[in-house]
Amino acid sequence: MTPNQGAQVGDQGRRVGEIGEFGLIADIVRRLPGGAPVLVGPGDDAALIATPDSRVIATTDLLIEGRHFRLDWSSAYDIGRKAAAQNLADVMAMGAVPTALLIGLALPGELSEEWVLQLMDGLRDEGGMVGAAVAGGDISRCDLIVLGVTALGDLQGRPPVLRSGARPGDRVVLAGRVGWAEAGLELLRHNCREPAEVVAAHRRPQPPYRLGPVLAAAGATALCDVSDGLLQDVGHIAAASGVGVDLWTEALPVDEPLRVAARELGADPLRWVLTGGDDHPLVGCLPAGQDPPPGCRVIGAVVLGNGVTVDGRPWDGAGGYDHYS
Amino acid sequence: MTPNQGAQVGDQGRRVGEIGEFGLIADIVRRLPGGAPVLVGPGDDAALIATPDSRVIATTDLLIEGRHFRLDWSSAYDIGRKAAAQNLADVMAMGAVPTALLIGLALPGELSEEWVLQLMDGLRDEGGMVGAAVAGGDISRCDLIVLGVTALGDLQGRPPVLRSGARPGDRVVLAGRVGWAEAGLELLRHNCREPAEVVAAHRRPQPPYRLGPVLAAAGATALCDVSDGLLQDVGHIAAASGVGVDLWTEALPVDEPLRVAARELGADPLRWVLTGGDDHPLVGCLPAGQDPPPGCRVIGAVVLGNGVTVDGRPWDGAGGYDHYS
Repeated sequence: MTPNQGAQVGDQGRRVGEIGEFGLIADIVRRLPGGAPVLVGPGDDAALIATPDSRVIATTDLLIEGRHFRLDWSSAYDIGRKAAAQNLADVMAMGAVPTALLIGLALPGELSEEWVLQLMDGLRDEGGMVGAAVAGGDISRCDLIVLGVTALGDLQGRPPVLRSGARPGDRVVLAGRVGWAEAGLELLRHNCREPAEVVAAHRRPQPPYRLGPVLAAAGATALCDVSDGLLQDVGHIAAASGVGVDLWTEALPVDEPLRVAARELGADPLRWVLTGGDDHPLVGCLPAGQDPPPGCRVIGAVVLGNGVTVDGRPWDGAGGYDHYS
Repeated sequence: MTPNQGAQVGDQGRRVGEIGEFGLIADIVRRLPGGAPVLVGPGDDAALIATPDSRVIATTDLLIEGRHFRLDWSSAYDIGRKAAAQNLADVMAMGAVPTALLIGLALPGELSEEWVLQLMDGLRDEGGMVGAAVAGGDISRCDLIVLGVTALGDLQGRPPVLRSGARPGDRVVLAGRVGWAEAGLELLRHNCREPAEVVAAHRRPQPPYRLGPVLAAAGATALCDVSDGLLQDVGHIAAASGVGVDLWTEALPVDEPLRVAARELGADPLRWVLTGGDDHPLVGCLPAGQDPPPGCRVIGAVVLGNGVTVDGRPWDGAGGYDHYS
């Protein structure tokens, strides 16, 4: 469960257990900027956030040491970036703009304060990229590091883009990298550090935040972020919409760094693209007459039927990610 | 950390690890009612919740097995009730009405599904008491049970009641039980099961939800829920407001069941009232001319100065709860 307990202690400086809950909160809050949508920030019983169109998008995830991140593979700062990214991506996948983050931290007493501050800097900076300030949170003690991240967002008056609106004839579009995080994880498992950009993709995803609202405004009929693997998440759209989806391998982005990594490991890069999670690209559907916005590529079509095929056939590789498989 | 791993497995039925993440989610969602403020509920990338006055109250907490609850002392249902209660109480303490809950679950694979469904029923029922539906969440695997609870709320057009508005001359008011949960915990630690109502108070708090908005409407200048102990949480109001507070022991509710428990254990019931956490009563301040609403009692006064005194003197017993002390 905790492959590298040693790494979590940090080399120097004060320990969380010495500083105490309230001292740690004060040190964290000192480094957080306010944000325009945050009307009441950290320090009270709860936060208050503006919701201009009288609705709020809300999503939450837990991240557990040893399962969602490893202390020897990622810095505290990168873990913060990644934890924020995966929740902000869910906001984007509704077609919304993120507005705020709430952070629950469970931390071992022997953890260095510096580690926690770096983590919070990562959360702050990833949120800052899209205008979402850390508005509040909670700290408690645990033998494992656990992060609870809640992200809120604003639809700016648009309807939410659900998974259930895809219609036969729609085109399937993809925005952002896919397969990179999984390839990076495989490289790390094999003690490889190159291609560095692929390893970095495991540590810090780059969801195409801006394109969620863009695709919503362009008339997307369905939208989802890819966290469990393209086949599986497209499958969620197909199931929710009562349609089939056919993906076209020729249209999928098997990027050159993925090919390099695959040669290094003797792996199939297409498998990473189809089943790798954690990059948090956007996949969605657009009516056939609608050109994909810049940054989005057509990768398939919505068809009558059910399930997901690849080039017209069932994919025979392994599926996506289930937390209990 | 996990005093009773055995209890978590449950006696019979399917295990979480057999059902898988998506099967478990489906089984949970089947038992959840919708709620009027929830516009998009579980099953998409994120939830969408109505926020009638264009603002949303938001708060989050992590609860860790062995630290915030013990499987041999509390049922899954009671743990759910308590986990929801402590977050809903934070919403109440801003003067708001809860609208929705988001739940992050990290669960061991060998846990029985029935345990998880009971937990969710508890979360659902506590939220249902105040009109807050479970709007979304996330499940992942962990060797420990970890709950991440986020509660959202609606101020109904009122300003939020912060901790920082108390002024000298205000009266300090209390609504709800205090000291009961701590006394119940002490009874359990000593293998006592009586008084049963005090033990039950540890398992399931009863925050005076309704009185948060009532006190806000009555002109409360400051408001806070008591989660760390009355002295400590009143101290937060004093510090945030730049004032002192004097509490009057004669006015504090040292209820008869607390006295019975104290005799049983040879303890001081006043200490429980002053320093016990986890009951989540409301403590706040009202201008002197304002009568306390029914259900609220005056327990002290706001004074010039700083810090909290009891009958005019520093309290010499132990303080409240710091997660690292």
